[in-house]
Amino acid sequence: MLILGIDTATKVCSVALTLDGRVLAEHNSTDGIAHSRRLLPEIDGLLKTAQVAKEDIDMVAVSMGPGSFTGLRIGLATAEAIAYARKRFLHGVNTLEALAYNLRGEKKIISPLIDAQKGNFYQALYQWQGDELVCLEPVAIVNQGKLWERIGDRPAIVTGECGALQNLPEHIELATEDLRSPLAKSLCAIAERNFDEEKDKNFFGLEPFYIRRSEAEELWEQRHR
Amino acid sequence: MLILGIDTATKVCSVALTLDGRVLAEHNSTDGIAHSRRLLPEIDGLLKTAQVAKEDIDMVAVSMGPGSFTGLRIGLATAEAIAYARKRFLHGVNTLEALAYNLRGEKKIISPLIDAQKGNFYQALYQWQGDELVCLEPVAIVNQGKLWERIGDRPAIVTGECGALQNLPEHIELATEDLRSPLAKSLCAIAERNFDEEKDKNFFGLEPFYIRRSEAEELWEQRHR
Repeated sequence: MLILGIDTATKVCSVALTLDGRVLAEHNSTDGIAHSRRLLPEIDGLLKTAQVAKEDIDMVAVSMGPGSFTGLRIGLATAEAIAYARKRFLHGVNTLEALAYNLRGEKKIISPLIDAQKGNFYQALYQWQGDELVCLEPVAIVNQGKLWERIGDRPAIVTGECGALQNLPEHIELATEDLRSPLAKSLCAIAERNFDEEKDKNFFGLEPFYIRRSEAEELWEQRHR
Repeated sequence: MLILGIDTATKVCSVALTLDGRVLAEHNSTDGIAHSRRLLPEIDGLLKTAQVAKEDIDMVAVSMGPGSFTGLRIGLATAEAIAYARKRFLHGVNTLEALAYNLRGEKKIISPLIDAQKGNFYQALYQWQGDELVCLEPVAIVNQGKLWERIGDRPAIVTGECGALQNLPEHIELATEDLRSPLAKSLCAIAERNFDEEKDKNFFGLEPFYIRRSEAEELWEQRHR
């Protein structure tokens, strides 16, 4: 199965092409250009790198958040429209699960984080059990204290948007920096595992999981509805 | 030429299909459902109404603003991805011009408006000269006083987001309410007139014209870059 992965949940723009689990090409960049301007050219460049025609894509895998409002909107609108225009499968992936997937084979508990502003984080807990990534605790918004509490005494590795964390307990380490960003190839891998021929036929109605927006943004939205 | 028009610059979601200038079908709705959830199903419904296969679309015409940040992003990402995925033409249209186009054959000066918040408006001035819609004054942000000033003594008709205007001078009237919203069929008509085989091959780099965002939104964006 040829899968195009798209992750624009954070400031990283990550796109990848995998064929039956093998990464044909991936482009990851974070140079501050808006996703709206960068995403489609990146996809085009990726297809050229891999010498793959867009007609051959079987499925589009897309990051569903938690993540940035605008980034998720762009990623999902683009993924939906490509899947729709070419009648391909569309598969949404939780961004925290994708972050955990980056650390394949890790023995410790994995705690991926996405910054939820004001000292809070979106956190879930995962663990690799053999070849399977198991979700131990679902997504919750927590502050740093609560974050350690959810991990408890268990040896753990924290990944994702964890740069602002301070005073890590001794049994908790940070993932190496290059694995802390959502990578589209992880989306592709998860989408391939969880592929559902019926469910993934639906291009419509996928609802991304936004970071809570500021009051000002919500007010603005209300005033303009 | 079969053109799919997409306008999500305001709270109205408008999609239309035209064939050589004839409207095959249009869907206009404003029931408060987010564009992100509504747009693709609307396009799909439209194609079914018109009994047109998406393979047959020659060009996608899309509203470029001024308009709502999220609305324009969704519309443009969707339009770009459809054009890209199927190798079709993509043509961006100024939302104010599209509003003026709704009033075909009007003799007076046309002043389309988009609400720019805090008592300000995006305004441009147009006039029909025979079969041609001529732009007399380019887009500017103006308050109500300046808005009348730009029109001067000339008989004019105001359209678009003009519901908040008060104390209209005698020589200025409001467009009837059903013509005040951007209509995708007007985008299609403008795109067909201005079609440029070379320029409209580019799927990348179209830059929408946003309403100025709130300070809070801009701060948030800066902090997350």
